[in-house]
Amino acid sequence: MVKRYLSLTSFDEALSLLKSTFPGPGRTEIVPVIRALGRAVAQPVYARYAVPEVNLAAMDGIAVKSRDTIGASEQHPVTLGQAARVNTGNVLPEGFDAVIMIEDTWEVGDKFQIRKSASPWQHVRPAGEDIREGRLVLPKGHVVRAFDIGALATYGITEIESTTAGVGIIPTGSELVPLGVHPRPGQVVESNTIMAQVLLESMGASCTRLPIVRDDPTLIEEALRAAATANDLVIISAGSSAGTRDFTAGAIAAVGELIFHGVAVKPGKPMMLGKISGTPVIGLPGYPLAAQTVLREFAVPLLEHWGLAPFAKHVVRARLATPLASDLGFDEFVPVSVGRIGTRHWGIARSRSAVVQMSTVRSNGYAHIPARIEGYDAEHELDVFLTTDPANIERTLLFSGAIDPVLEELGNLAHDRGLFIHTANAGNTSAILSLKRNACHAAPMSLPAFSLLRENATLFSLLESMDLVFVNIATREQGIVSSKGVSPDTLDTVCWVNSGRDTPARLLFDTLLASHHLSPAQVRGYTTEAATPGAIAAAVQAGQADAGICSEGLATSHGLRFFPLAKEQYELVMRREMLGDPRIISLISLVQGREFKAQLERTGAYHTALTGRIRSLSSDTSDIDIPSSAPPSVIP
Amino acid sequence: MVKRYLSLTSFDEALSLLKSTFPGPGRTEIVPVIRALGRAVAQPVYARYAVPEVNLAAMDGIAVKSRDTIGASEQHPVTLGQAARVNTGNVLPEGFDAVIMIEDTWEVGDKFQIRKSASPWQHVRPAGEDIREGRLVLPKGHVVRAFDIGALATYGITEIESTTAGVGIIPTGSELVPLGVHPRPGQVVESNTIMAQVLLESMGASCTRLPIVRDDPTLIEEALRAAATANDLVIISAGSSAGTRDFTAGAIAAVGELIFHGVAVKPGKPMMLGKISGTPVIGLPGYPLAAQTVLREFAVPLLEHWGLAPFAKHVVRARLATPLASDLGFDEFVPVSVGRIGTRHWGIARSRSAVVQMSTVRSNGYAHIPARIEGYDAEHELDVFLTTDPANIERTLLFSGAIDPVLEELGNLAHDRGLFIHTANAGNTSAILSLKRNACHAAPMSLPAFSLLRENATLFSLLESMDLVFVNIATREQGIVSSKGVSPDTLDTVCWVNSGRDTPARLLFDTLLASHHLSPAQVRGYTTEAATPGAIAAAVQAGQADAGICSEGLATSHGLRFFPLAKEQYELVMRREMLGDPRIISLISLVQGREFKAQLERTGAYHTALTGRIRSLSSDTSDIDIPSSAPPSVIP
Repeated sequence: MVKRYLSLTSFDEALSLLKSTFPGPGRTEIVPVIRALGRAVAQPVYARYAVPEVNLAAMDGIAVKSRDTIGASEQHPVTLGQAARVNTGNVLPEGFDAVIMIEDTWEVGDKFQIRKSASPWQHVRPAGEDIREGRLVLPKGHVVRAFDIGALATYGITEIESTTAGVGIIPTGSELVPLGVHPRPGQVVESNTIMAQVLLESMGASCTRLPIVRDDPTLIEEALRAAATANDLVIISAGSSAGTRDFTAGAIAAVGELIFHGVAVKPGKPMMLGKISGTPVIGLPGYPLAAQTVLREFAVPLLEHWGLAPFAKHVVRARLATPLASDLGFDEFVPVSVGRIGTRHWGIARSRSAVVQMSTVRSNGYAHIPARIEGYDAEHELDVFLTTDPANIERTLLFSGAIDPVLEELGNLAHDRGLFIHTANAGNTSAILSLKRNACHAAPMSLPAFSLLRENATLFSLLESMDLVFVNIATREQGIVSSKGVSPDTLDTVCWVNSGRDTPARLLFDTLLASHHLSPAQVRGYTTEAATPGAIAAAVQAGQADAGICSEGLATSHGLRFFPLAKEQYELVMRREMLGDPRIISLISLVQGREFKAQLERTGAYHTALTGRIRSLSSDTSDIDIPSSAPPSVIP
Repeated sequence: MVKRYLSLTSFDEALSLLKSTFPGPGRTEIVPVIRALGRAVAQPVYARYAVPEVNLAAMDGIAVKSRDTIGASEQHPVTLGQAARVNTGNVLPEGFDAVIMIEDTWEVGDKFQIRKSASPWQHVRPAGEDIREGRLVLPKGHVVRAFDIGALATYGITEIESTTAGVGIIPTGSELVPLGVHPRPGQVVESNTIMAQVLLESMGASCTRLPIVRDDPTLIEEALRAAATANDLVIISAGSSAGTRDFTAGAIAAVGELIFHGVAVKPGKPMMLGKISGTPVIGLPGYPLAAQTVLREFAVPLLEHWGLAPFAKHVVRARLATPLASDLGFDEFVPVSVGRIGTRHWGIARSRSAVVQMSTVRSNGYAHIPARIEGYDAEHELDVFLTTDPANIERTLLFSGAIDPVLEELGNLAHDRGLFIHTANAGNTSAILSLKRNACHAAPMSLPAFSLLRENATLFSLLESMDLVFVNIATREQGIVSSKGVSPDTLDTVCWVNSGRDTPARLLFDTLLASHHLSPAQVRGYTTEAATPGAIAAAVQAGQADAGICSEGLATSHGLRFFPLAKEQYELVMRREMLGDPRIISLISLVQGREFKAQLERTGAYHTALTGRIRSLSSDTSDIDIPSSAPPSVIP
């Protein structure tokens, strides 16, 4: 039977227990300066000697004794008895206290003549000008930057003492295979410990990834005992099965102390904290996003608490494009894509499924919803912690609408121009509402022709209330997707997966049924709605249905068969003012360029005759001044 | 004779010449995912297989065929013929399409009974839920993050193709010694190429640092020719002498083409750009800050242009605490310390001397003043490019006033509390004006006693117009610093270096002279003013003067002799409202703590009886509610 967590420790309590129970091993290591970038110095760093150590000439010229130059003028040139030719950086000879620039001297025989007096110490770099011997270069805890390393080298410092921690990482789970092995069904690649190693080593930890331990309590106990002895911190990654997880908790308790099991954090609930021979043991949940959360919210702060180089945390205030629900009593962490629209930042929450690693990959930040909050309304402003360089936010375009594989091609090409396209799936009305709110840059979708559109009163009046433009991406074929080749003749013999209300695919399906005199009740699966066009194809691919309506592009990309029914225009809908945004100008010039069309044509699933056309709502032809071409580097 | 630059290329033109002449080698390398952090992917990365590849159980429970469960209810339990026990992550057996949670099942003999029907695909992770085979994981140019690496591993990707460039770095100059060798007078450690290597490798370049070449045109030509053949970019670091620099320009011209020599950039003017066998050659000025500027403003953008991982560039808008002059016609880059005071960010410009590497080390950002600007007034708002994590700005305290070595001790301890103290030297009146402008957190200084203070009408009325508090750092002894032991008896026999007007040291010197019936004219060096108290000690140490007035701490830290004259209170002056700032509360609790006092006492140059006292202007005793102790982690 499955054991359940008896009680959950709150996020705040778990974090403070972790820090207070384990104040830190105080481990340091010597690191050559050439490898010190990003490392925290464990002790203040002092200059080994003064720089410069002696007075130097700061100009090319002649070294003089300033008192010898008193009274020199155009009318009364002075010929110097004692003067020495020096170049910039040369040692100022003993007894000399000034340098006269070579331009201000005249050679008279083997002597120098001057026409202006020199003030004491002019053009001299005094000893210790940069730093004096023994003075502080870097305070304790400073994180070394590239240019600090130049200074350290100059001041005779060849190595630093840096804070570190030995971290032993144990992967457990009989279903795991190592990186490089193609998993059989039910197996997964052991990736959480790789992620842990890369993350913690970037802070200066020294990680040892141990071999995979299969689901055997004795083996897990042995691995824990050995790792706890050899390291300052042990991270044990549970397998993805509940059984394994429970072996780990039991194993920690058997060889040490289980401090808690289960935190009120989502994702990350199955987290464990233990102590073995005084060494902290963090039990990582098996699901990737849960493992990420526990690493980022617990392991990273612990190492920061121990003095390792802090993990960069950039925050932007952003408004939510859509409402965000959250479980009361749980601190939730949600992947978010942020972009700037007009003068405001907006965030679109992504899938919170703990198994969908792509939602982290596709996002550029995350939000933390405290336990006391039940969720936020759309337009609520909150902190988003960035997982990318803040400058990239400025280059991010948020798309909300119907997702078609063509957006991946567009995203790849846009990346070359320094633009990052983040897409979120939404129905037509919801996407247009998002445009109205100015919460996305553009809404990709296929709208019915103008005449048909007027029949959908809500959507039509919404569209009419705004000044929108429609940038044609491609003409795509909508039709029947199936694995076995379903055609309109076999509509009532197969099991369908349907599209959501208010989608062109749904409308097309209804038209198809009507033309074959079938009522929805006569069609199996009519009431089964998939969330996205991609989910239609995926459901058919997975055998959950025999057929559905989607685009040829999706059918092709899922390796499925396709029966064409109708052509539709896949367009980027946007507010007209967006045509003045340099990022959109650059995007449009990309859509209108040869490379994109060539790429579309290679897929064989799109027509590009209209690609790049910009129209307004009531027109089916180009009627808008198209920015002819973007400047080569238009992005600020 | 020294050759001068015939003409200077403008910053913008130099940068665009660089990029347009050298569009990039398109070099890539294969990098294992475990070492891919921070690398830019050269090609889009696609999933090797679907994850999961087959339908999986998403819960611990029993796999069922959903149609077998129709009609099950509390009143009419259904006993299932076909059902299989599954754990989370197990493969859903062929033909099954739903999972019922174990809590909702009852074992009846060897069969399972249920009391609720299962909808199709409930608690099932469909194949491809995370990603489908062949779908895009990372677009071209994406910079890999730690959690991306977990996803890559999960999707079967063991290595990435990453953009790189081979960079050959040649140090030249007969005055150079390698890292680890103590330079003799006039020699310097070869550190610019170390800095270049660390900086460019952090972007993914592969750097080869070549041996030091002495100032010999033939040797430089040979080194250039070899490096240009073996690399995509050559960086040649000139020695610090003008002669060397000119050898380099000539050598580039001799074996290739010198595109320009000299840019209208400060620091960085002597920069060169050349082309040898099609390979770009960047000539780095010898002075460290000039070398930094050329690396950051030219070499880094070139590699970014070539597709290497961009260098993080964080910007804050900050007001200038003091005016900032700039040469018209030159793009100037100035090290700046930024901190938040109240609701605004303020920036204090640091030394622009191209030889003072400590001004880069001590700053947390830099400002770029375009060529068309002659400078900015105080309070002008401008962009500051950060050289630290933006979160550190929040933890930065700006001090403007009289610098005493004790601030180094304070800075070290403050660093332990997550506070970064940045100090800038200023006279008393200027520091108080800075407080009035709210452009610094605190002004360290020693003010005359209240009775004496009233005699300085300007300063006094300024102080009286504000609500200030004075936090005592230490009582320090002011006296005569000298290398040979100067006492008040020998005032008129030695050469002095004086302090600036409006400093307590100047006042003390005047009092001393008056008590010995000496007029300023009778004292040698009275009119020679050092810019800072530290400069007094430094001038004496360097032999530029026999004696001066400074604190015992400075005399000690310079290894000089000291004759005590008077005690003074070294205090942190701040606006009263600062006592509510958590950072200041934390700082004060540090000043009042045992560790700081113990550290001060160890130096032997300070008295700590009053350390931590907080007083107001008119009172010499503690009259302010002292925040008794700061919470352990008070900084947001």
